Amino acid sequence: MLTNPRSDRVKAVRALSRRSVRSRTGEFLAEGPQAVREAVAFRPDLVRDVYVTPEAAQRHTAIVEAAQAAGLRVHDVSPDVLAAMCDTESPQGIAAVCRVLDVPLHEALADLPPDALVCVLTNVRDPGNAGTVIRGADAAGADAVLVSDASVDVYNSKVVRSTVGSLWHLPLSVGAPVPEILAALRERGVRLLAADGAGTTLLHDADLSGAHAWVMGNEAWGLPQEVRDACDDVVRVPIHGHAESLNLAMAATICLYTSAEAHRSAR
Amino acid sequence: MLTNPRSDRVKAVRALSRRSVRSRTGEFLAEGPQAVREAVAFRPDLVRDVYVTPEAAQRHTAIVEAAQAAGLRVHDVSPDVLAAMCDTESPQGIAAVCRVLDVPLHEALADLPPDALVCVLTNVRDPGNAGTVIRGADAAGADAVLVSDASVDVYNSKVVRSTVGSLWHLPLSVGAPVPEILAALRERGVRLLAADGAGTTLLHDADLSGAHAWVMGNEAWGLPQEVRDACDDVVRVPIHGHAESLNLAMAATICLYTSAEAHRSAR
Repeated sequence: MLTNPRSDRVKAVRALSRRSVRSRTGEFLAEGPQAVREAVAFRPDLVRDVYVTPEAAQRHTAIVEAAQAAGLRVHDVSPDVLAAMCDTESPQGIAAVCRVLDVPLHEALADLPPDALVCVLTNVRDPGNAGTVIRGADAAGADAVLVSDASVDVYNSKVVRSTVGSLWHLPLSVGAPVPEILAALRERGVRLLAADGAGTTLLHDADLSGAHAWVMGNEAWGLPQEVRDACDDVVRVPIHGHAESLNLAMAATICLYTSAEAHRSAR
Repeated sequence: MLTNPRSDRVKAVRALSRRSVRSRTGEFLAEGPQAVREAVAFRPDLVRDVYVTPEAAQRHTAIVEAAQAAGLRVHDVSPDVLAAMCDTESPQGIAAVCRVLDVPLHEALADLPPDALVCVLTNVRDPGNAGTVIRGADAAGADAVLVSDASVDVYNSKVVRSTVGSLWHLPLSVGAPVPEILAALRERGVRLLAADGAGTTLLHDADLSGAHAWVMGNEAWGLPQEVRDACDDVVRVPIHGHAESLNLAMAATICLYTSAEAHRSAR
């Protein structure tokens, strides 16, 4: 049992709360049972160490057993040690150091089906929004999520937590410039739909057949003109009441689910 | 200009961050330009006092002018005073003390159109979720939002902020017990659709014609059996990928928008 919250190992794990350390080591910390369970279930090859308190080990026996069955190193730690490792206030007794899981752009787009659904996040800055969109993209059955450069780091603990495990569920690329992302999609015959409050096409009039990607902009200022111009259509979610707007995560989820439903009813 | 952050007036405003004080006084504090703008625009009759810093008064002249045109009392305050009044860390220089705006259940349901869309929140505890659902209901054109007893207080500053002004946009009832809410809707011919991950009807198969209400449950445990039994159908949003679930705000927004689209295409 690891009991010294000031040990070098604990400090090394805690340092993963810094983006610079994550970049250098290629590792990040998945905090809480949902994240650890999905990491172990979907990408055990990327899990380096699981840390669990005695209490959490009892409560989450299935996770611990799955980790052991996958041959992973599971370390017993005191609650103090876990708290010292984690960024979140209540990590619920379990965390895992994982290798980053993003892949190069061409690899994320390697196996797109004919009716591919892709989600592109450009300049998204709020961790909760980014994580919730990734979760929504997963739930809507998206085939890939592409996060552009100048966006929040997807390995930030708040993003990881907001994805509720979806981070490990679908091909993810991070850091490519927006023009490169759009060109790569276009090359593969994926139509580009910009989601923007300034769009002239209403969501229910948009052509959602075949392969397409939703291009989402920044929370506050939306998509710049040159990105909208580079897309095949600029689509807006209708606002029926008096609300000024929808937030990014809500708009993205509605767009992705509308696409999923269009694909489903076409099949 | 009010400059003393320890004055009785400032203390009285600050005390509105406590639910007990809000209940007793029937007042709450709307913090930030979006909330104040919508309160002044939609329900000036319920705004008691507007407090604004010199800097914010310059940045939000339209809000200040609208408040003055409505005959409201606009007080210049120092940044210290505004910070001492507010619950949020960065209130952006403007806040308003408002009368609560909920109405009795029968009043919230008084003017329902034949294709009414209603949102019922039962046992919702997270302020951000509650506020985001109210915003989503507004955007989807819902005709009323009914928040049951044992739910988060909608006048909590986090809820108010998350609604981004939608709090003032549509009839709202709070505090009625769930059975009473469901009976009142049924009496008015509004069909009851429980939104729940345990539902057997998929959203795209649900009957969304005519007047109906979406009944949303608690973030963690969903809807209790007796509430599901009291509804006409229990509907689940399909999960196409590997995501375990959608969060409450996302699920509610998808359901409400799907209803709005069904009503739109029927018209």
